[in-house]
Amino acid sequence: MKIIEGGVCAVDDVKAWGVKEGRNGLAVIVGRGNASGVFTRNKFRAAPLILTERNLRKGFLNAIIANSGCANSFTREEGISRAKKMAELLADFLKIDPETVGVASTGVIGRQIDMGVIERQFKMVMKNLSSSPDGSRHAAEAITTTDTFPKEFAVEIEGVRIGGIAKGAGMIAPNMATMLSFIYTDADFSPEILNPCLKRAVEKSFNCVIVDGDMSTNDCVLITATGKKRISEKRFQEGLDFLCVELAKMIARDGEGSKKFIECRVEGAKRKEEAVDAAKSVVRSPLVKCAINGADPNWGRVVAALGGSSAEVDPERISLGFSDGKEKVVLVKDGKIKEEGFEKAKKILRSKEIVIYVDLGMGGEKASAWGCDLTEDYVRINTKYS
Amino acid sequence: MKIIEGGVCAVDDVKAWGVKEGRNGLAVIVGRGNASGVFTRNKFRAAPLILTERNLRKGFLNAIIANSGCANSFTREEGISRAKKMAELLADFLKIDPETVGVASTGVIGRQIDMGVIERQFKMVMKNLSSSPDGSRHAAEAITTTDTFPKEFAVEIEGVRIGGIAKGAGMIAPNMATMLSFIYTDADFSPEILNPCLKRAVEKSFNCVIVDGDMSTNDCVLITATGKKRISEKRFQEGLDFLCVELAKMIARDGEGSKKFIECRVEGAKRKEEAVDAAKSVVRSPLVKCAINGADPNWGRVVAALGGSSAEVDPERISLGFSDGKEKVVLVKDGKIKEEGFEKAKKILRSKEIVIYVDLGMGGEKASAWGCDLTEDYVRINTKYS
Repeated sequence: MKIIEGGVCAVDDVKAWGVKEGRNGLAVIVGRGNASGVFTRNKFRAAPLILTERNLRKGFLNAIIANSGCANSFTREEGISRAKKMAELLADFLKIDPETVGVASTGVIGRQIDMGVIERQFKMVMKNLSSSPDGSRHAAEAITTTDTFPKEFAVEIEGVRIGGIAKGAGMIAPNMATMLSFIYTDADFSPEILNPCLKRAVEKSFNCVIVDGDMSTNDCVLITATGKKRISEKRFQEGLDFLCVELAKMIARDGEGSKKFIECRVEGAKRKEEAVDAAKSVVRSPLVKCAINGADPNWGRVVAALGGSSAEVDPERISLGFSDGKEKVVLVKDGKIKEEGFEKAKKILRSKEIVIYVDLGMGGEKASAWGCDLTEDYVRINTKYS
Repeated sequence: MKIIEGGVCAVDDVKAWGVKEGRNGLAVIVGRGNASGVFTRNKFRAAPLILTERNLRKGFLNAIIANSGCANSFTREEGISRAKKMAELLADFLKIDPETVGVASTGVIGRQIDMGVIERQFKMVMKNLSSSPDGSRHAAEAITTTDTFPKEFAVEIEGVRIGGIAKGAGMIAPNMATMLSFIYTDADFSPEILNPCLKRAVEKSFNCVIVDGDMSTNDCVLITATGKKRISEKRFQEGLDFLCVELAKMIARDGEGSKKFIECRVEGAKRKEEAVDAAKSVVRSPLVKCAINGADPNWGRVVAALGGSSAEVDPERISLGFSDGKEKVVLVKDGKIKEEGFEKAKKILRSKEIVIYVDLGMGGEKASAWGCDLTEDYVRINTKYS
């Protein structure tokens, strides 16, 4: 497997472009093939998601249109009708069936989409639609909101390419919270294979990212497979997992107001779900997040977060340490506190990339989760937004 | 039912005192009777809680000793032994069985208790033990950590008195997170009656308070009934519920760094648990907390939080509004957005006491939860602590 350039445009026959003006952005990606999606579990699902899920019943997409600035969420029938208009706009231009268009939105909840803005930006986008890496980059920029950088990634595995863009930043939580990701591949799979592959990849990537624990009404991951190349499902899954984890880490790294990236690696859990929940509990804890912000090796907060998770734990078996990716320090070993590590831990925690190692000592299962520190900037950003 | 003065000392034959020096505090309460307790669900349970739960098997307490500054949590066998020493110190002085002493601690995790400090403060406390309201006040002050005010409350119902003290502030979450409360009553009940009464009261009070969603290793609520007066269980439950809700609200009001108190009242839920979970989801949401901090009527974040809860919801049936306790504004009525209320909502949200009203329109169940806004001060306080 190798990392390649180009985001979604790394995949042949995929074209993209995007425009961002102030808060409002519009992205279009054109690429036809079998398709599948994963949608937010929030019970108030935004209008474009309702439409896209319906369109995906046929398991096929010709293109995607996505806007930022307005979530088109909690907008009733009128919202659905405007999401449909977005699909029709693109379908008319491309002379395709509007029911083969995926629609996504991100932004403020409870406002109707300004179709004037969409139509104006649409013209600008379609004029520039491109299969070069620039196309992917502009699409990735267009869907950002409070993101500080566009997110794209692509891999090649056994000659098959998988490329994606994503947006994240605020409100990121497990269960697909305010996050969009559009993935393309030239692999040849039916929607029936794509769907479980995507679900598995999302489960161990995007759903393991936590910025603030809130869950959005709008988030979705869509995958389209152009079907030019053959690869085993197993190898494809490896590539897709890798791609999604990299995009997920970018989202964690770009959590609102964050200055530090946190990875929690839990091993020694009795069951897989326990490992996942334990890792998420640590990166979710506001107290752990504040301690990392302050480079304070307050491992007691990690212990408290683990004890509050669903994982089976034993104070006599737990081991715990910090790393900056280069050096590692153990602060608890089989339940015994290693006070001599405290000063080194302080130094390690000054890094911008922190790994929290946990060994529960209860079994053989492991999992990782990603997040960021909690800063005064997070509060500032979210105190004024709508 | 009437509100009376005196905290725990409102109950006859209950004496208390406390000393607080910098971070370290010690409180003692003497009052004998049938007793029961509710303990944190965090799987790493601090040493004093392990001891106290064991002592409570007999359903009887003569006294309580509690310190602040050191949580005596994650301290292995030595921690249990020091918690026992605290009990013995008090038992020797009072000439009682050490197994009839309740022990509690709050503070930093992973450090052993400094018995020198405990012994020194113990002498100061016992010299001043008092049945006057002053006694309760000093005990309440002694158990504070980042609290900005001591918390006590007492009620009289049909001649029966119930009084309590509590500490809260940081890390407050459902399921008994970093919170201590000691309650006394002159009612006559067996431990078998006291226990379910306490559990019910805790469920709708302390467990509905959320400051940051973290869960502590140390929290417990203890109740002792001196058995002088008779009252029906139903009326007693009313009084106990009221007392616990008032103490819980004080804890929410004193959330770390908070400037505003938030109450979320959910009605129209299909099931009781759904009402509770919906209300908690709203006061737990960092995005809602930030919006309230900034007086931003971003009701979409309330909707997103509700949609992320376990409650059954329907966008066409939901109603939602804000109040400052005097004026009320409706922003969503049966799914329709009332934009004309937006300016009034901004004015209301400038208040220091915010009520968020939600009617799910799905059934007849209701619940309340309490919390506070998320401020830059919360981050500052928790960035440096250990």
